[in-house]
Amino acid sequence: MAKKYVIAILGATGAVGTRMVAQLAKSDIPVAELRLLASKRSVGQQIEFRGRSLTVSEAVPDSFNGVDIVLASAGGKVSARLLPEAVKRGAVCVDNTSYFRMNEHVPLVVPEVNAAEVSQHHGIIANPNCSTIQMVVALNPVRKRYGLNQIVVSTYQSAGGAGQAGIDELYREASEHLSGQAMTSQILPVKGQDHHYPLAFNLLPQIDVFEEGDYTHEEWKMIHETKKILCGDKNSRALKVTATCVRVPVPITHGETVYFTTDATPTPAAIRETLTTAPGVVVQDDPKQQLYPQPVNAVGSQATFVGRIRSDMENARAYHMWVVADNLVKGAAGNAVQIVEALIQRGAVHGSPASAPLFMKN
Amino acid sequence: MAKKYVIAILGATGAVGTRMVAQLAKSDIPVAELRLLASKRSVGQQIEFRGRSLTVSEAVPDSFNGVDIVLASAGGKVSARLLPEAVKRGAVCVDNTSYFRMNEHVPLVVPEVNAAEVSQHHGIIANPNCSTIQMVVALNPVRKRYGLNQIVVSTYQSAGGAGQAGIDELYREASEHLSGQAMTSQILPVKGQDHHYPLAFNLLPQIDVFEEGDYTHEEWKMIHETKKILCGDKNSRALKVTATCVRVPVPITHGETVYFTTDATPTPAAIRETLTTAPGVVVQDDPKQQLYPQPVNAVGSQATFVGRIRSDMENARAYHMWVVADNLVKGAAGNAVQIVEALIQRGAVHGSPASAPLFMKN
Repeated sequence: MAKKYVIAILGATGAVGTRMVAQLAKSDIPVAELRLLASKRSVGQQIEFRGRSLTVSEAVPDSFNGVDIVLASAGGKVSARLLPEAVKRGAVCVDNTSYFRMNEHVPLVVPEVNAAEVSQHHGIIANPNCSTIQMVVALNPVRKRYGLNQIVVSTYQSAGGAGQAGIDELYREASEHLSGQAMTSQILPVKGQDHHYPLAFNLLPQIDVFEEGDYTHEEWKMIHETKKILCGDKNSRALKVTATCVRVPVPITHGETVYFTTDATPTPAAIRETLTTAPGVVVQDDPKQQLYPQPVNAVGSQATFVGRIRSDMENARAYHMWVVADNLVKGAAGNAVQIVEALIQRGAVHGSPASAPLFMKN
Repeated sequence: MAKKYVIAILGATGAVGTRMVAQLAKSDIPVAELRLLASKRSVGQQIEFRGRSLTVSEAVPDSFNGVDIVLASAGGKVSARLLPEAVKRGAVCVDNTSYFRMNEHVPLVVPEVNAAEVSQHHGIIANPNCSTIQMVVALNPVRKRYGLNQIVVSTYQSAGGAGQAGIDELYREASEHLSGQAMTSQILPVKGQDHHYPLAFNLLPQIDVFEEGDYTHEEWKMIHETKKILCGDKNSRALKVTATCVRVPVPITHGETVYFTTDATPTPAAIRETLTTAPGVVVQDDPKQQLYPQPVNAVGSQATFVGRIRSDMENARAYHMWVVADNLVKGAAGNAVQIVEALIQRGAVHGSPASAPLFMKN
């Protein structure tokens, strides 16, 4: 009989957490017990999993006793505090926050791209940023076949990247505006920062805080995470990546215009063909039929949708594509569950000691 | 006493036409008489101009008898049919449609960039595409000072680019969605094409019909109009331009992520400084204060707002900027009225004979 796993979901009541429960339920992963963990204020909530109603309990270190696998999406500070406790107790953690992503002892995994790296974990595997995931799923097949030198990406990111509260704020603002009231903005662009601006019927060219070079943290994530996933090094010079991230008034699902240069000179049809057989990619690219990826059609899907594949008419080896994916499913919960599947397939759930270099002080 | 002009507005009841009336009213242009022209179904509508209520009449060839200046925004077919009649009667026409833009005898004018070209008209001056106008206003000062080699632009274009009907459709769809109904899409992405998709809470990577190389007509406009305006030749190879145009659920005002390469290597601060003193540009670029251009703040303004100016950290001579402008004002009605002002300042209203090469059959 196949082994069954004790799984804990940390942050089970959030926009990503609830989707982790749903994606896990849909998967073939054999679950002996599912523990739904959250902060105090969510204790007692009921969430259905595979026909049973489970009760949310408070996340404390001993919540992880006997747990094999943790899926975490309760914010960076919570992951920083609790995941070492889970690892100490023998669990392997798939962390959706950015806290551990750039740690050299933490694999950053998109299963379609670098599933083998799950075996290199020391207790923690990081789930990349949502906008990074969909871009590398679309570009990795191109990179493998034609080489990849440069990426210039502009994002069209949904409110859902700021969690359920972001989605609620977008809808509330839209209702206010349609009924002639002033829009009341409390969260976006960045929770806790000084200024809040409406997203409904507007565009916000700020996602996360500003950093070096006047790039936002979201833009830095796209640059360094893409390099770490595709080149194995967050500072790799083998691939140039630059980004502008913009929040748009869409509840769930990100769009991206991706401009990229290759070593070879494939036709757009050849790129289309390459992507048609690529894992996790659905090509929707038939201009004559007005077929191209749209957020309303991608919501709820685990796939990454690609269309508008074209050559730059004036630069050989340069191309455009338009990439759309559900940022809460493929961009978060779904990718995390795929990582768990990869861990199980490779027998890597208990593949490394808790005395790993990750938490060694040096 | 300064000469006063007889001015006709063709398509006076549309989203752009009503703004032409408003922009003209606000200007210092001395108007002897304003004729509001539209199709039959709008005849009798009243529109206020400088404190008087004017009645819309049907546009026929003789509507242009005695007219000095025509501002046209009633669609390409109407311009094709009626503007030669106006020119024959001695008027100079500023046409907001794309019909004459690529004609070699028609100046394509953004006054901040190439005002002098108004004097070269043969009866018709074309107002460029909205997304092109704001981009060249922002880039021309950079080009003049630092040289410009390549542009990669991604647009975030509002429903208003499809006229008042586009704006109405966005709001109607948003209301439907918020009240739990299915969204009913009748116009977007392109009026008269086979498929219509919702824009509310969605993204549509199609603006206008598909053409050569799977580029949309909107993308081709941005490429060729930018070259014609900045280089004097729609096929110029001196400047490479490529574009992806996306419709976003914003009623009015376009955003653009503009990635560009220069000859010189200015700092972002130097570019900021150059743009601060540039005509028609308002720099809003202070990340520490979370200051950057947003559509909600740009609506109704004649300015082009620029922010998020940054270097590409891995490519010398490559930069990003985020450009926002009201597509119906600066992108259409306002730019057209600026062209009229340039015509008057340069004494070019009656600067050329009606027997111009424009309508010569050869």
